[in-house]
Amino acid sequence: MPSIWGNYLKLSIFGESHGPGIGVVLDGLPAGVPIDREELERFTQRRAPGKNRNSTPRKENDWPEFLSGYWNGATTGTPLAALIRNHDTQSKDYSQMQAVARPGHADFTGFLRYAGANDVRGGGHFSGRLTAPLTLAGGIAKQVLARRGIVIGAHLVQVGGCADLLYDPANLDEETLLRPGNAPFPTLDERLGARMQRVIEQARMEQDSVGGMVECGVLGFPPGIGSPMFGGLENRIASLAFGIPAVKGVEFGDGFLACALRGSQNNDPFTLKDGQIVTETNHAGGILGGISTGMPILFRVGFKPTPSISLPQKTVNFREKRPETLEVHGRHDPCVAVRAVPVVEAAAALALLDALLEAQGYQGMQA
Amino acid sequence: MPSIWGNYLKLSIFGESHGPGIGVVLDGLPAGVPIDREELERFTQRRAPGKNRNSTPRKENDWPEFLSGYWNGATTGTPLAALIRNHDTQSKDYSQMQAVARPGHADFTGFLRYAGANDVRGGGHFSGRLTAPLTLAGGIAKQVLARRGIVIGAHLVQVGGCADLLYDPANLDEETLLRPGNAPFPTLDERLGARMQRVIEQARMEQDSVGGMVECGVLGFPPGIGSPMFGGLENRIASLAFGIPAVKGVEFGDGFLACALRGSQNNDPFTLKDGQIVTETNHAGGILGGISTGMPILFRVGFKPTPSISLPQKTVNFREKRPETLEVHGRHDPCVAVRAVPVVEAAAALALLDALLEAQGYQGMQA
Amino acid sequence: MPSIWGNYLKLSIFGESHGPGIGVVLDGLPAGVPIDREELERFTQRRAPGKNRNSTPRKENDWPEFLSGYWNGATTGTPLAALIRNHDTQSKDYSQMQAVARPGHADFTGFLRYAGANDVRGGGHFSGRLTAPLTLAGGIAKQVLARRGIVIGAHLVQVGGCADLLYDPANLDEETLLRPGNAPFPTLDERLGARMQRVIEQARMEQDSVGGMVECGVLGFPPGIGSPMFGGLENRIASLAFGIPAVKGVEFGDGFLACALRGSQNNDPFTLKDGQIVTETNHAGGILGGISTGMPILFRVGFKPTPSISLPQKTVNFREKRPETLEVHGRHDPCVAVRAVPVVEAAAALALLDALLEAQGYQGMQA
Amino acid sequence: MPSIWGNYLKLSIFGESHGPGIGVVLDGLPAGVPIDREELERFTQRRAPGKNRNSTPRKENDWPEFLSGYWNGATTGTPLAALIRNHDTQSKDYSQMQAVARPGHADFTGFLRYAGANDVRGGGHFSGRLTAPLTLAGGIAKQVLARRGIVIGAHLVQVGGCADLLYDPANLDEETLLRPGNAPFPTLDERLGARMQRVIEQARMEQDSVGGMVECGVLGFPPGIGSPMFGGLENRIASLAFGIPAVKGVEFGDGFLACALRGSQNNDPFTLKDGQIVTETNHAGGILGGISTGMPILFRVGFKPTPSISLPQKTVNFREKRPETLEVHGRHDPCVAVRAVPVVEAAAALALLDALLEAQGYQGMQA
Repeated sequence: MPSIWGNYLKLSIFGESHGPGIGVVLDGLPAGVPIDREELERFTQRRAPGKNRNSTPRKENDWPEFLSGYWNGATTGTPLAALIRNHDTQSKDYSQMQAVARPGHADFTGFLRYAGANDVRGGGHFSGRLTAPLTLAGGIAKQVLARRGIVIGAHLVQVGGCADLLYDPANLDEETLLRPGNAPFPTLDERLGARMQRVIEQARMEQDSVGGMVECGVLGFPPGIGSPMFGGLENRIASLAFGIPAVKGVEFGDGFLACALRGSQNNDPFTLKDGQIVTETNHAGGILGGISTGMPILFRVGFKPTPSISLPQKTVNFREKRPETLEVHGRHDPCVAVRAVPVVEAAAALALLDALLEAQGYQGMQA
Repeated sequence: MPSIWGNYLKLSIFGESHGPGIGVVLDGLPAGVPIDREELERFTQRRAPGKNRNSTPRKENDWPEFLSGYWNGATTGTPLAALIRNHDTQSKDYSQMQAVARPGHADFTGFLRYAGANDVRGGGHFSGRLTAPLTLAGGIAKQVLARRGIVIGAHLVQVGGCADLLYDPANLDEETLLRPGNAPFPTLDERLGARMQRVIEQARMEQDSVGGMVECGVLGFPPGIGSPMFGGLENRIASLAFGIPAVKGVEFGDGFLACALRGSQNNDPFTLKDGQIVTETNHAGGILGGISTGMPILFRVGFKPTPSISLPQKTVNFREKRPETLEVHGRHDPCVAVRAVPVVEAAAALALLDALLEAQGYQGMQA
Repeated sequence: MPSIWGNYLKLSIFGESHGPGIGVVLDGLPAGVPIDREELERFTQRRAPGKNRNSTPRKENDWPEFLSGYWNGATTGTPLAALIRNHDTQSKDYSQMQAVARPGHADFTGFLRYAGANDVRGGGHFSGRLTAPLTLAGGIAKQVLARRGIVIGAHLVQVGGCADLLYDPANLDEETLLRPGNAPFPTLDERLGARMQRVIEQARMEQDSVGGMVECGVLGFPPGIGSPMFGGLENRIASLAFGIPAVKGVEFGDGFLACALRGSQNNDPFTLKDGQIVTETNHAGGILGGISTGMPILFRVGFKPTPSISLPQKTVNFREKRPETLEVHGRHDPCVAVRAVPVVEAAAALALLDALLEAQGYQGMQA
Repeated sequence: MPSIWGNYLKLSIFGESHGPGIGVVLDGLPAGVPIDREELERFTQRRAPGKNRNSTPRKENDWPEFLSGYWNGATTGTPLAALIRNHDTQSKDYSQMQAVARPGHADFTGFLRYAGANDVRGGGHFSGRLTAPLTLAGGIAKQVLARRGIVIGAHLVQVGGCADLLYDPANLDEETLLRPGNAPFPTLDERLGARMQRVIEQARMEQDSVGGMVECGVLGFPPGIGSPMFGGLENRIASLAFGIPAVKGVEFGDGFLACALRGSQNNDPFTLKDGQIVTETNHAGGILGGISTGMPILFRVGFKPTPSISLPQKTVNFREKRPETLEVHGRHDPCVAVRAVPVVEAAAALALLDALLEAQGYQGMQA
């Protein structure tokens, strides 16, 4: 179960950071949907490191080899498998990991979980690098959705104490939704983005790191999709989003803010607009009872600061059970949330495609 | 899939608010675990309405009939099914629902999802009443866990602008953990609880409602349990917790607060205590890489305000597509988060038992 | 997982033979499909015991109470739960079971599996009585399929050395398909049925039992439904059919007979008939590559003889580990295959509805 | 769902016959189990073609590249992915497939299922070649089981009218179990094997093919493993075995033969042997109520004749809807059952490991 997700669309992710490769199998895609590889590359490149000082200098060539499920430029409907080779791996950087727990990392818990047999190099299966196949799979799902007029975008909404504007929940338009993702730094407001970059750079200079928050929006998702209780859109998105390393919180619409609101403030009045039933406000983030309302779907994902920092940290050698001081060197983003922006979009795309397949079946989506 | 959850422990919830009954099937429980019915009743009564002015006056007799899986005071290991009869249902209260969308409710989305065929009386399958079987199932899981020294408690951490103290993440003790659940009003600090009650009462008096937040803690959960990516403890808990009506956010450990922290602040240093590896702080909420660290597991769940309020609201008749003004009368809690405290504990218990069964199998848990 | 089945339609069966009741939750049904309760009763009555000398004299009142998911004569789309109360249970008949293994029964394996905690009265969760909720669920699925022109029938094709005619694989018509199920004894050929009844009566008189085989056919199932590898129609039907107690074999089309054939004999030539692509013969039983061809779907299920016989049998007391001689008295069908005919139809209906939901989604089936 | 199987161990198979490669992801393996690659190669080579006149002359190099989950000679516990490259593909052989249905093949049903978008070259995802990753996965599962004393073997039990001896159900020893798999032709009796080879050669000479049957046995599987209803060992094995192309029947123990038996013949008397509870006979094939008895597990799988034959066959062009005559040339085994012997062992190994993980958890199997 661990690394397999989904009910109507199944996602199986494999790989370790410094093994031969990482990849994904997507089972249940509708057949005959054209996938534009250049568009897919543009999307996955948004996650790629090395683009600026805010991300790790490790060079990745994340362009995948499609092993199956993709033929003549389109999905075949059978399992789509894609492999991303690992290159430029410097395993000596990680030699301590088999015994010394990096604080905030899964070294110790992974050691217990796998009885010491897991591949620890570069974080192994726990590495943030595993978001590459997730992003790839999500990029494919995004294109399937886009052909049905469903558009997904995300932006960096907070870094440290510094916040971007939020999407306007009730009046989000496509241009605004997509602009941050196409910008050099993924914020709605360029000046706020510049401030965030300074916050990140400051942390990096001080051999530290900083947390961040990503907001994701979806336009064009049809109303009436999703299911009650555990089949809700929130459940599906959250169960995927918590699979992204460093995620510690997920909220929809007004989210935790709604805890402080009154019902009269939080309820979204229904109204008619051009003959369609819409809500005037959108505190619900486009989801009621787990089911889409037709309004923009909105959620936010909170990322903890990158645990790998160069400052000396107190820890233990868990094999020998003795205290130790650790400085984590190597190549690490000072703020994982920056590159996570497209990963969050990917999670949304996969969750929503799963829900759409439940509603329409493969025949409904192939037509 | 909608109302079925789980991989190693399967939970199937059924029922509508005003139908013959609601209930649950739990499949995969270890056999031969004694279940104390009085203890179970005490637990489920914490969710029951009608106990004070802060909850709906509807009288429920939520004591279930065990239909299977329970024999001689213990689990049999085969599916445990329990039925809670619906009584005291006043369906005339809900007659408008088939056409007029209550803002903040699933009336409109349910209408679309089920092509108008779903039972809308009292909210049907979307009713908060469906948390009764979830709580019952969780109460059973709690007892299974308690026999292994795993203890779960929760409290109301916020209502409106009014907040309770938080559990101490690194030094939580069992007495503190359980005290709120046993109190008449589930807060750590009695005076803060009194203030919250006034906030709720104020909202009720003004024909309004208010949101709230619940914090849940777990002590004694063994380290090394859980799985990476989509099998993480966070994924499991969140995918259940978002099945509780009105939940709009879930966060673990420091959660969204970590977005503003530095790595040097958020990382929990490992240390040795009585020969055990522990962390000095517990920003991670007891989970790293989806796997338990052995420290207290901590998460918070945000509830929106009860959408049913008596104030006039703007809405539409979705069958006839015309505007309407609605006043929702009937019996509704002015703050759903209060009674949700044991429901959140239930969700935690089920998710953690699922993870424990993955680790130990039924044989490991029957021994 | 044990008693939960399905991916697109989920079936959760619970109950023990002598507990309060047995039942089923069906999750994923399309909404708004009328279910005719009289037709459903006629179908489930075909499984009911006590109709003639060939079945156990125990009186059952298998008419279920619908607890949820059924409103105004139709499915609501939310989980449909139904409860069948246990009456007329004579638990003293089964007092030996907690220690003495009935040969051919699950007493010993159940004891090991559940560490001695399972409810053994009347076979508990292993009882053939658990086919009642399966049949009920299948009867509902049959009606959903019938509205789309899909018709399912079955007959007793063999008892002891005595065989009925087979359905004509390539030219099966609806009248022939359904006739056995409506007859007092479910065979195509009345005289062969009379012979079978004598074979069964002979076994009963000699305090023995006899095995049997059921053939099931499906007309009107659209071509192109199903999936390769583990999602094939054969996989789905078999994984359900082996859940019927006493089933030891499942085969499709020519089945095991095909082991002895040449490709030139077994391959079904494609041809055109009224502009439709059909096959001239139907050795494949309507399934190629796991996917329907549009020809009649045909499979056979082999049942072992009822293990409960009154003849003295050699066995052991598994608690005290000593040899014992056992005579099983009580009420037992001398040939379980007779009453299993509608159960096999039910399994087919559920498996095929699951596959149809994969193809068309709930929206495609609600339209 | 289609090409993903399992609950406690998850198997995801991908690939098309003439695409870049085929492979498998195994999720849920216990960590730290040594996998001997030479032993694994010996096992998978038993499925490899080109070894004698009875199998297709296509040269395959089925030695996989392990992409993840395998480190330092052992499982890591994280998803194990393996890739088998496709070489020596002669796609021109298959050019007709996009329009002309080969009788007995999935060309037509696949066309309908995937709206004409699936990769048809060499049968695509429906190719028998997809049994290579299944065999590989099963070979790994076999080694995990072997470390616990569980041994699996199979043999060709019938070809055309010509049958091998059966395993002795109650007195099967390891040498007998494994001998056929190690022989040049996988039968228990060498002379009967020689006769079978002549039957196959005769079919081949006549441009035809022939069906066959495989029997599989398992020794050392502990009693009390498996679950009732849909979680039975039979359900698990069958749901996998029907995923092997050309399988049309699966039976356990006496299987369909039991339809003709009396209870007094078919029931296996329990007895004590060296203090252990065993059965004197083993008509049940080691499974009662879906749960292992501790006796040898035995089942048989029926394969239809290879549908690809060189004799002229009547068919249709399904794109143009017109009749056609087809001669299938290219490289095809005249009897798929021969090379399927290790594939059946693989299916058994995977199903039994899934059941063992349910019972013991990953911790129980890592210890």
